Amino acid sequence: MITKEEIAAAYRQIQDDICKSLELADGGAFFEEELWQREGGGGGRTRIMQNGNVIERGGVNFSAVHGKLPDQIKRAFKVEEEDFFATGVSIVIHPKNPWVPIIHMNIRYFELNETTRWFGGGIDLTPHYIVAEDAVFFHDYLRKVCNQFSETFYERFKVWADDYFFIKHRNETRGIGGIFYDRLSPENTALDYQQLFAFSTAVGESFAPIYSELIKRNKNKTFSAAQKEWQYLRRSRYVEFNLVYDSGTKFGLETNGRIESILMSLPPQANWAYNYKPVSGSEEEQTLQLLRKGIDWSNEHA
Amino acid sequence: MITKEEIAAAYRQIQDDICKSLELADGGAFFEEELWQREGGGGGRTRIMQNGNVIERGGVNFSAVHGKLPDQIKRAFKVEEEDFFATGVSIVIHPKNPWVPIIHMNIRYFELNETTRWFGGGIDLTPHYIVAEDAVFFHDYLRKVCNQFSETFYERFKVWADDYFFIKHRNETRGIGGIFYDRLSPENTALDYQQLFAFSTAVGESFAPIYSELIKRNKNKTFSAAQKEWQYLRRSRYVEFNLVYDSGTKFGLETNGRIESILMSLPPQANWAYNYKPVSGSEEEQTLQLLRKGIDWSNEHA
Repeated sequence: MITKEEIAAAYRQIQDDICKSLELADGGAFFEEELWQREGGGGGRTRIMQNGNVIERGGVNFSAVHGKLPDQIKRAFKVEEEDFFATGVSIVIHPKNPWVPIIHMNIRYFELNETTRWFGGGIDLTPHYIVAEDAVFFHDYLRKVCNQFSETFYERFKVWADDYFFIKHRNETRGIGGIFYDRLSPENTALDYQQLFAFSTAVGESFAPIYSELIKRNKNKTFSAAQKEWQYLRRSRYVEFNLVYDSGTKFGLETNGRIESILMSLPPQANWAYNYKPVSGSEEEQTLQLLRKGIDWSNEHA
Repeated sequence: MITKEEIAAAYRQIQDDICKSLELADGGAFFEEELWQREGGGGGRTRIMQNGNVIERGGVNFSAVHGKLPDQIKRAFKVEEEDFFATGVSIVIHPKNPWVPIIHMNIRYFELNETTRWFGGGIDLTPHYIVAEDAVFFHDYLRKVCNQFSETFYERFKVWADDYFFIKHRNETRGIGGIFYDRLSPENTALDYQQLFAFSTAVGESFAPIYSELIKRNKNKTFSAAQKEWQYLRRSRYVEFNLVYDSGTKFGLETNGRIESILMSLPPQANWAYNYKPVSGSEEEQTLQLLRKGIDWSNEHA
């Protein structure tokens, strides 16, 4: 039986590997690390890169925390347990060039006792300008990762991502989705914990090749001041999603998590324009029209 | 007995008067108006000023809406009523110069039936740099407005503002507070509805003289690029408050209000810096140290 220590060790390794890959892909800046301890037990390694060649700001965080489960979480999870353990890797990257997409990844493991344990996570992409071939590449890659473990995972988790990364008050998706899953256990999958752990690490390990490729494809594209302005507007939607809907952020704010680690997902700069309407037929309008649920990127746009 | 039509008419007049005063104080830009209708009944006048001499972006909104009460609101208010009426004026001003404070004002009236009616509202100030004399002026002005109606109002509503405009996850207040009140009725005040209405309009009418004075005092102060950067950071805290805690914003997002009118409170630009710490002894640090509850500005700092 896979132990929480093994899972945390694997996640720590994934954080190390991803940071190395991102430094290589950026070619300019390096991650700075902040180690922190949680009062109730455990801690984490927050790593932030800023003002790189490609990455304006990015965070790759690892944490492994344990302790007494807060009452509000007990009620939310409908459990009686006192102790919990949680470990995960969380990433958000805000690139400089608006042609390079924002990316988010999270893999996490939560344990109350030998029978109440689960994996959650996902990867989703938020292009400022949707490049169809990149969207196809991204979704195809995730499909392949999922298919190694279950034929149902990609379809199931793609729909889940569409529903989760949705900005209800704007009636638009945060980006082009990806995969999202939560509370995976042998009860709701055909996999045992060892296999679920392998799936979780496979998702984590897919981040570096996916994002390195997307950086390589787009980092040298030129962009105008108006396109940079559009990036700032799209980032403000990212802020709205994360502060209004994101359950990880909410959980962190409500449980007195380390604020700077939780809010590293917010961009260095975001702009709000009153009643912005894109020019008819513009690339901005085309992107907005694709910010909706249910687009089957790997088939419709191949 | 004062009617909802009279209250809406008075609020509409207050919107007109405030817009004129702000245009005069700005001396550069004018408000643009957008009229909107609510599907369920009623509508509003959203007025936005942008890129003025003083005001980077400001909104002064009036609305008067009615219709069937959504089930979630019925549960929240613990009432059985089907129909509601609500009218109000809402203002948020983001100035260009970081020495001019952000200001917010809201006056509102809500009615379910002849006996279930209440007034709410408040004014609060969010200086990027706290100027003690301005804070004293602001709180003294509000105290005088309150004292015309009740000797208990200022103390009561000042504490309410401290508690309400609090960014829990940062452990800091949004600014230097002001007054905040909700569900005022003859049951919880010594005033009848006519007097409460007079108080509500007095709060509304205090906005223009207060903010015109604060603009006059500070608009010609010079500021550096670093001080403008600090303003962007403070604005990001404003975004955090409004999206995470503000009940008016939440109510609007959950009930499918007009998004552009609700989110006009967000600034044109906001920046997030990872783990920002002000220089020891700096003006920024001094301001941060004053972003806490319970400061009695009109006495301690006179």
